[in-house]
Amino acid sequence: MYISEGTIKRILKEAGAPRMSAAAITEFQKYMNRRAFDVAQKAVKFSRHAKRKTIDISDIQLACH
Amino acid sequence: MYISEGTIKRILKEAGAPRMSAAAITEFQKYMNRRAFDVAQKAVKFSRHAKRKTIDISDIQLACH
Repeated sequence: MYISEGTIKRILKEAGAPRMSAAAITEFQKYMNRRAFDVAQKAVKFSRHAKRKTIDISDIQLACH
Repeated sequence: MYISEGTIKRILKEAGAPRMSAAAITEFQKYMNRRAFDVAQKAVKFSRHAKRKTIDISDIQLACH
């Protein structure tokens, strides 16, 4: 997992959560890691499609949608 | 920023990116932080709607969609 439990807890606290269940933290963490990897894989595909070896901002913008 | 530049770089590398521009990293980092905070705020809203003070897994599942 790239994004830690601590990071997830901090985000929830800052968003105004007084308390959170352990299962909620794990679910959120899994979602964020899945989403991040999905965007990254799409960005890599788009850069290859454009015949580049460097991921640039346009690959990320396209992959976030 | 909750999710660091280092984390973003690691995710891109693992997804197969040989190289990445600094702007691409920043864009990806901003997107992930925005998405995380958006999900967290929605989860807090949903828990309040259900008259709970503890964020549970159902709040996160609803917020991820």
